[in-house]
Amino acid sequence: MSAPLGEFGRIRRFFAPLAGPGGLGLSDDAALIGVSAGRQLVATLDTMVAGVHYLPEDPPALVARKLLRVNLSDLAAMGARPRAYLLSTALPAGLDDRWVEQFAAGLGEDQRRFGVELLGGDSVATPGPAVLSLTALGEIATGTAIRRAGAQPGDAIWVSGTIGDAFLGLAVLRGGHPELPPEHRAAMTARFQLPEPRVDLGPRLVGLVHAMADISDGLVADLEHICEASGVGARVRLGSLPLSQPASVLAGRDRSLPARLATAGDDYELLFTAPALAGERIEALSTILGLPLTTIGEIEAARGVRVVDAAGQQIPIEATGYRHF
Amino acid sequence: MSAPLGEFGRIRRFFAPLAGPGGLGLSDDAALIGVSAGRQLVATLDTMVAGVHYLPEDPPALVARKLLRVNLSDLAAMGARPRAYLLSTALPAGLDDRWVEQFAAGLGEDQRRFGVELLGGDSVATPGPAVLSLTALGEIATGTAIRRAGAQPGDAIWVSGTIGDAFLGLAVLRGGHPELPPEHRAAMTARFQLPEPRVDLGPRLVGLVHAMADISDGLVADLEHICEASGVGARVRLGSLPLSQPASVLAGRDRSLPARLATAGDDYELLFTAPALAGERIEALSTILGLPLTTIGEIEAARGVRVVDAAGQQIPIEATGYRHF
Repeated sequence: MSAPLGEFGRIRRFFAPLAGPGGLGLSDDAALIGVSAGRQLVATLDTMVAGVHYLPEDPPALVARKLLRVNLSDLAAMGARPRAYLLSTALPAGLDDRWVEQFAAGLGEDQRRFGVELLGGDSVATPGPAVLSLTALGEIATGTAIRRAGAQPGDAIWVSGTIGDAFLGLAVLRGGHPELPPEHRAAMTARFQLPEPRVDLGPRLVGLVHAMADISDGLVADLEHICEASGVGARVRLGSLPLSQPASVLAGRDRSLPARLATAGDDYELLFTAPALAGERIEALSTILGLPLTTIGEIEAARGVRVVDAAGQQIPIEATGYRHF
Repeated sequence: MSAPLGEFGRIRRFFAPLAGPGGLGLSDDAALIGVSAGRQLVATLDTMVAGVHYLPEDPPALVARKLLRVNLSDLAAMGARPRAYLLSTALPAGLDDRWVEQFAAGLGEDQRRFGVELLGGDSVATPGPAVLSLTALGEIATGTAIRRAGAQPGDAIWVSGTIGDAFLGLAVLRGGHPELPPEHRAAMTARFQLPEPRVDLGPRLVGLVHAMADISDGLVADLEHICEASGVGARVRLGSLPLSQPASVLAGRDRSLPARLATAGDDYELLFTAPALAGERIEALSTILGLPLTTIGEIEAARGVRVVDAAGQQIPIEATGYRHF
């Protein structure tokens, strides 16, 4: 047993090694970020609360990596490349140093993986549950960021990867789907606890697509956001939804499942709309990246998002948007 | 009585009007920040917890303004000009919309005053006390930021404004110093609740001074940080400490007070070291800005911070660094 490190000790021991040159060793009042001529900085911020956005007993390294990844997903959704981040941790006084050590180790692993560095932040105590907030900074050629506004009638609607796995993973964590084999249960759980931000795909879609967002609130809700911002509507073919193998197995037994997966959140896949002539280049990107890119519908002039079955009949969608624990 | 607005409603109603062009109306996944050639971005982050860094019953507008100002103080301490900010609010579910409205109004007032804009952020619910985190972004000519490292033996140590008022203000809020007249009590309280970030001074010290920090942990502690980063030591004349009129009155009755004020935090004044030849220009700045700038000691080669009385005798300093509520 060693003495608790305290805030300054934790910063020196666990976080200072994560600081890049811009972070100035975390020893100054602020950090420095150079931006090349013709480039813009892109900034986003996401906050996670213990017991709300993750479970207090979740592995700290996974919590840290998810916190970083959901922010990198936001940068990717603008077409930006990630560069650096600032971190705010408000932690219960009782949380031991080992939790912080593992949390920082998770950050370290993912910042090597994604090529980002810690710039600075703040570390405080709270009498309540842990509140973790991360500000991510990325970079993009000036004027080329992909916005939510920009979708045009006739655009194909695309989605990366597979949809609904995080929702199934949360269900598995709660003891659901015992009929799935262990490897499928683990795969779904991983999709919930450790999303894969599409950092390679996002920047390559600059100039190819009209509008983009990442799927955090749910496919239908995030498509609604794109449509509202663009002043258009959308038709989504439920049968075109890209499903993972475990999700397909479950959907074969429960025909109401795909509609629920279409409204579940936390996928952190990219949702984008593109003109028909971009289709070939998008499919080529899919091959290059080894990442499924699937058309699931079309943008239409009539407002609203319509989800239809194989016969073209509209399916009522009950609730859209993210649900917390 | 109207229905509660919810997270999205609060963002639309209270926060979207604070967003500048870079914030894209808070409708996208991330915000955009252009940086001119030859300029660097400067980033800092501070977090405040209800019941720790402010009292839950404090006026929400003051809480918001303090949150913004402590970050602007960090930018000023690097010599940077403030530009924009991102905001994370984790709020108890029971907090009513009026609190959020007043909080946003406080931000609005100060962002006009300091010429900054809201870029984005996140708004979540917490079962614990409110946790507020703000990331401030500023700008500076590349390579000119003033660091903590850089103090040199022979430098004069300067401080802006007056020292210890926030400490006295906190004591007044706790019912202390009833002997002070009401206007002095109010002045001290204001210094604690609403610090004045030295945003006009900081950027004008670029090229003039060797090292700088803002005083948040306490004059002695922040001077120790400068000395450690610079590999030097310091001698501070306690009798030279610039005191406000109320602090002077109290110090006349309690000779131990100045040493306590020298270690109290939350002043948000600038502490900097400069060569003798910069003295005249620094004094001219004091006149231009109408802000006292006072030399309180010298940087020395011998490590450590020594606080001395009028006879040059070293005064033992008991504790240094910031104390929470």
